Amino acid sequence: MTHTVTNLQEDFEKGLRQYIHTLPADTLHAPMKYILGIGGKRVRPVLVMLAGEAFGAPLDKLLSAALAVELFHNFSLIHDDIMDAAPLRRGEKTVHAKWNTNAAILSGDAMLIEAYKQLAKAAPEHLAALLHLFNSTSLEVCRGQQLDMDFERIDDVTIDQYVEMIGLKTAVLLGCSLKMGAILAQASETDCNSMYAFGKMAGVGFQIQDDYLDAFGDPMKFGKQTGGDIRSNKKTFLIIRALEKADPETRIELESIYFRNALRDEEEKVERVLSIFDQLEIGPETLRESKKFFKEAAAELDKVSLRPDQKAGLQNFLDELQQRSY
Amino acid sequence: MTHTVTNLQEDFEKGLRQYIHTLPADTLHAPMKYILGIGGKRVRPVLVMLAGEAFGAPLDKLLSAALAVELFHNFSLIHDDIMDAAPLRRGEKTVHAKWNTNAAILSGDAMLIEAYKQLAKAAPEHLAALLHLFNSTSLEVCRGQQLDMDFERIDDVTIDQYVEMIGLKTAVLLGCSLKMGAILAQASETDCNSMYAFGKMAGVGFQIQDDYLDAFGDPMKFGKQTGGDIRSNKKTFLIIRALEKADPETRIELESIYFRNALRDEEEKVERVLSIFDQLEIGPETLRESKKFFKEAAAELDKVSLRPDQKAGLQNFLDELQQRSY
Repeated sequence: MTHTVTNLQEDFEKGLRQYIHTLPADTLHAPMKYILGIGGKRVRPVLVMLAGEAFGAPLDKLLSAALAVELFHNFSLIHDDIMDAAPLRRGEKTVHAKWNTNAAILSGDAMLIEAYKQLAKAAPEHLAALLHLFNSTSLEVCRGQQLDMDFERIDDVTIDQYVEMIGLKTAVLLGCSLKMGAILAQASETDCNSMYAFGKMAGVGFQIQDDYLDAFGDPMKFGKQTGGDIRSNKKTFLIIRALEKADPETRIELESIYFRNALRDEEEKVERVLSIFDQLEIGPETLRESKKFFKEAAAELDKVSLRPDQKAGLQNFLDELQQRSY
Repeated sequence: MTHTVTNLQEDFEKGLRQYIHTLPADTLHAPMKYILGIGGKRVRPVLVMLAGEAFGAPLDKLLSAALAVELFHNFSLIHDDIMDAAPLRRGEKTVHAKWNTNAAILSGDAMLIEAYKQLAKAAPEHLAALLHLFNSTSLEVCRGQQLDMDFERIDDVTIDQYVEMIGLKTAVLLGCSLKMGAILAQASETDCNSMYAFGKMAGVGFQIQDDYLDAFGDPMKFGKQTGGDIRSNKKTFLIIRALEKADPETRIELESIYFRNALRDEEEKVERVLSIFDQLEIGPETLRESKKFFKEAAAELDKVSLRPDQKAGLQNFLDELQQRSY
């Protein structure tokens, strides 16, 4: 019997609590416990478990790899939050804000090593494959963060560059999580690769959808106020595509409103940007693009040599991602 | 035939240059190439190679592990230099000073992952053992850095705490390097552990000796001006032991001169501190302590089940550490 996403989340939380309990009570580990404790949807570890179960592995063989990806993800959040000078994460103080930058650097480092410690618990026959995948994915995530920071200083980022960046920064880790579960369940190489592509495509689709929802979503369903990306001058699919499509005059207006705060009033800024987005039909185009990636993800899942009932959990995951909040 | 330390340094430099050549030409990797390029004595990779050769492994089987420890060491330098706000490293700008803190955090992260990538190239039968050793050592190095930072804010650090800190921050990586070489050469577990203890003891001895030389060494032989630790209020074996031994009055004077710059003139500070050290016989005691650790290191090397001619390279290494600069 396979488990639902909610079951898996609960199983993972239980394992995570046990793991946290084994960590030393010192200043190095306190920030780790803190960030692991302030929640998150545990998407990545659940993907390891969903994929592993789909291919017939028992949950206890999947938990340390699931912990490894969650530790890696949280390490990257701690360090990204320093780089982005973010004061809040999941509504709580970020690690560098609660402690200080040095503590955040060092406990982030230790957390990355802790991820490898969990990974090293894999059965010897899977260790090299897992390590290879995890190493290349981790480096891609770093490269994604580097591109994201580089893009802050570049005026003419293209949509292709943006899609590459979100692919590296967020989507590859979803692909990696699914493939790790598949590897641990001894799935064929072809299936492992389809699982990876499924996760990566779904991740890109999700990120583009997230950009859409931040501007056009229903605040009640989206879970936060819309327009946040516009207020914070964030480079998103919407603004990059709008700058590409706009006539020279509108482009100049949009740049000065969006990036150089030409309008003093924030609400006025959001309103004007949204009206330009509407005029250029950016919303529908973004949704179409997001759906294109979700469709590619579905096609990859179709390729996987499992029965539909074995794939049900993965299919549900994809459906839920797509139906999120609108 | 085994190689001399100089041979091994050259072999390693050649391998390192080839490795650097394979790194992508992007902003993520530029700081890595830079810090690897500004030199260093390559002590840790040479130890991997010395130990591996002593137990009969060919050099080509040792190079990726040697690269892994050098990458790890340089990752830790990049991040430590941020935390210590150090402007210079080996006479050149530190990474965060040449680029910025964000670039130093992120390329340091990527460098740690690159270390694991090299480690993952080990033969499957050694991978789990290497990974286990590398993970626990890396966490110890982080804990050492944490203790070092904690100690900056604590008034009454004891000698035992100080020795624990330098053991973690610098000595365990020497032990790890030697043990990695031994593992790759299929040495017995007992020999592997003796090699680790040999490296760790030699590392602690070296660090204490370094504290001594910074105050009492011959500047010509030591390679830098003496008194640097005193000028920068650094907590060393000498000052900690002096505060332990001093009578209450001298203790108060020493604290105010050393940590609170009660004397405006730096040279006057160095002179007065050295005179108190002399009065308390701190120099000879520190040397004795350093020699005690070197002696323990030699005893560990004696235990290793190799012929004297096979151990010659390791013995030379230890002798050179001890005869350094005085």
